[in-house]
Amino acid sequence: MEADFGVVGLAVMGRNLALNIESRGYNVAVYNRSRERTDDLISKHADKKFVPSYSIASFVQAIKTPRRILLMVKAGTGTDAVIDELLPQLTKGDMLIDGGNTYFEDTIRRSEKLAQSGINFIGMGVSGGELGALQGPSLMPGGQREAYDLVAPVLRKIAARAPEDDQPTVTYIGPNGAGHYVKMVHNGIEYGDMQLISESYDILKRLLKLDHNNLSSTFAHWNDGELNSYLIEITADILTRKDDLGSDKPIVDMILDRAGNKGTGKWSSQSALAVGAPQSLITESVYARYISAMKSDRVAASKVLSGPEFTFTGDVDATKEDIRQALYFGKIMSYAQGFDQLRMASNHYNWDLPFGELAQLWRAGAIIRAQFLQRITDAYQTNPNLHNLLLDNYFKNIAESYQAATRRVVAMAVSAGVPTPALSAAIAYYDSYRSEVLPANLVQAQRDYFGAHTYERTDKPSGEMYHFSWYDEA
Amino acid sequence: MEADFGVVGLAVMGRNLALNIESRGYNVAVYNRSRERTDDLISKHADKKFVPSYSIASFVQAIKTPRRILLMVKAGTGTDAVIDELLPQLTKGDMLIDGGNTYFEDTIRRSEKLAQSGINFIGMGVSGGELGALQGPSLMPGGQREAYDLVAPVLRKIAARAPEDDQPTVTYIGPNGAGHYVKMVHNGIEYGDMQLISESYDILKRLLKLDHNNLSSTFAHWNDGELNSYLIEITADILTRKDDLGSDKPIVDMILDRAGNKGTGKWSSQSALAVGAPQSLITESVYARYISAMKSDRVAASKVLSGPEFTFTGDVDATKEDIRQALYFGKIMSYAQGFDQLRMASNHYNWDLPFGELAQLWRAGAIIRAQFLQRITDAYQTNPNLHNLLLDNYFKNIAESYQAATRRVVAMAVSAGVPTPALSAAIAYYDSYRSEVLPANLVQAQRDYFGAHTYERTDKPSGEMYHFSWYDEA
Repeated sequence: MEADFGVVGLAVMGRNLALNIESRGYNVAVYNRSRERTDDLISKHADKKFVPSYSIASFVQAIKTPRRILLMVKAGTGTDAVIDELLPQLTKGDMLIDGGNTYFEDTIRRSEKLAQSGINFIGMGVSGGELGALQGPSLMPGGQREAYDLVAPVLRKIAARAPEDDQPTVTYIGPNGAGHYVKMVHNGIEYGDMQLISESYDILKRLLKLDHNNLSSTFAHWNDGELNSYLIEITADILTRKDDLGSDKPIVDMILDRAGNKGTGKWSSQSALAVGAPQSLITESVYARYISAMKSDRVAASKVLSGPEFTFTGDVDATKEDIRQALYFGKIMSYAQGFDQLRMASNHYNWDLPFGELAQLWRAGAIIRAQFLQRITDAYQTNPNLHNLLLDNYFKNIAESYQAATRRVVAMAVSAGVPTPALSAAIAYYDSYRSEVLPANLVQAQRDYFGAHTYERTDKPSGEMYHFSWYDEA
Repeated sequence: MEADFGVVGLAVMGRNLALNIESRGYNVAVYNRSRERTDDLISKHADKKFVPSYSIASFVQAIKTPRRILLMVKAGTGTDAVIDELLPQLTKGDMLIDGGNTYFEDTIRRSEKLAQSGINFIGMGVSGGELGALQGPSLMPGGQREAYDLVAPVLRKIAARAPEDDQPTVTYIGPNGAGHYVKMVHNGIEYGDMQLISESYDILKRLLKLDHNNLSSTFAHWNDGELNSYLIEITADILTRKDDLGSDKPIVDMILDRAGNKGTGKWSSQSALAVGAPQSLITESVYARYISAMKSDRVAASKVLSGPEFTFTGDVDATKEDIRQALYFGKIMSYAQGFDQLRMASNHYNWDLPFGELAQLWRAGAIIRAQFLQRITDAYQTNPNLHNLLLDNYFKNIAESYQAATRRVVAMAVSAGVPTPALSAAIAYYDSYRSEVLPANLVQAQRDYFGAHTYERTDKPSGEMYHFSWYDEA
């Protein structure tokens, strides 16, 4: 039996993707460095069209040419090692697909290297976790267009389908590292969504003093409206759960407030800094995780550094609605920044990213799936050259009408001593972006003063540089 | 005549440093790729102890061994090129000193490579601009300790001297890239200082409607107190200056509000992200420059996106004092973050940075020179193992007593629609750092829910990981 497809790496993500592909009618050759995982998959699924292999050579030989081989191995040196093993066995025109959470510059490098041997390389972002891999992930493949066309029929079958129009959540993202880049920004946006939710939760809990039932029903209620999304939905669910180790407390109260990270949010912010994109909300979300990780420092500091006294005296329901609006406002700013980063990266790397389709393919399968993404899809359908989400009518109108609530929430939190780095970044971004004049004129004056860095003038064409003789009169 | 010292690269910084070194009684061999600059220096300073060379070989031969050679060339490939030319001419035990604004990882790489040939390498940060180079810069040399000891007598003579104790503003920073790293964070801190000043200026101008005389005298007045610093001083001066191209307006009003950057702030933030340091204020300052650079976008957006109505009805003098306190509070948070980044980088790279001495050597010569730096020096003298500046009594007391004013200023700016990304980051950092419990428990719950990333518990030792069976009940 010749296999239609190959999968290398049978840890949970690779295994689930192999099962997903097989379930769509394909024969799938499978290989894992240690044979136990291969044997386990085969023994549990003896009825399925898997072709187990125990050497790279026999694995490659089992697959029809041009070969389509998905790599689901540990990102980094693991990926390089398996590529080096595969390469001598491959034939020109074969294709490797890296489905790991790979740094996009590694993908660019590998793509160039493999192209020298005539091997196509697809760097593919996969979102949706273990369950998504099995039942339908959101897929972000980048690489040679002709290679994508060869693998697209399979990807379209295994992807999730958007509830709005039943379209599979996959499309061609762009050349070389484009797919992994888009996945990286997707993850950054996920950090932002989670931080905004946790700040809202913190205000509801610390300032409005809501109990867990009320917290849960608040998020459940929000999930019925324009905030409808997977992350809001699971937040409502999480807040109903009791500890499973016998404390009889809500599980969230037993979970230590120290957030981990796998580095994709960090990469996303580092790249925003590199391409010149003001992506403050995601970066603040990454820093919020870092400061959360300094638990023992914070415990010590909490005993030393005082804060303000605060008693909430407002209307609870009105303030809950303010917080809901602030959360949605923050989400809009975060996506505006994220898509702006994608636009700038697309120019920087010559990717020609399909912005509207990105929102489309995150509508299902992805962790950030949300009703809201249809609005972004619509915005780019109305104007494929949209320069910033805030200039689309829907987002402009929401931002304008929710800004007052957001200002009230941030002012309250700042006055009360509850940190809202992401919500604060959201309002600062909105106010900066809509400022015809920012105080950067003073920054330029200072730079010209101490470093003769020159400046542009308001009454001359931009790009003409001037220097003021600061020292002549001094 | 055998030279005591060599300088390669005679653009303005190299030329001024060569003049500075010569003025301290040293014979200085000078070389520049194109001979015009060498000839110009020699012809204008025929009376001085310069040894001009027109080839790398004769330049190197002119210097006493072990040779001390300062490279002042364009950072990047220029540095590699000149090192490659020099290397065959050098003798074991010679030393190269790179005084450019070099990325610290390049310095680490070059240090390792040169060590293989027995050549010592000092990566040295130089702050103070052109005038500082000539009259006395702040110097941040990193590299082999024994190499530093050989060059220290020269560096101590050419450095600035702190007004407090007449000490030269130079010390041994640490091995390989430590000096360039510290200079990079110095520059990041400079971005933060400039952004805080420009936000204060913006509030004074846009909300309190101060005219330029009042703006200037406000900063001049602030410069007489605890904010005393070079950047506040030049701000006061800048605000008095009239356009020199005939418009009769203040020069700041003719300067376009589009801030440039040379990349060191960006590097500083990228590294903070890499080492896990929550350095939000500097990063917001970098992003503020990026968004300032999007001038045409902002002009377009200003016509589309509305903001709040605001009329200032408070007491002008009281609010000015609030803003002064907010600026100082913000500065304290920025330096707390910057020094925390240095602490984490020191651990990460095994540098054993001398924190107190860093503040000491920024007290004069450096662009960020300020009275305030003596307070940091004192804090580390009181406690060399200080974990965060906010835990020092002076900074703790100021932060606590100035927080109320800062909250009022941020709340006012947020309500009024004036962006304060750095001041907002400052208060969010303070409130995060002093929070015994942050809402990161919810973030961890979400991560465990969708990705089985596990969590730590409040009732178990940290480091023990747990997973909740979210789907069993669902």
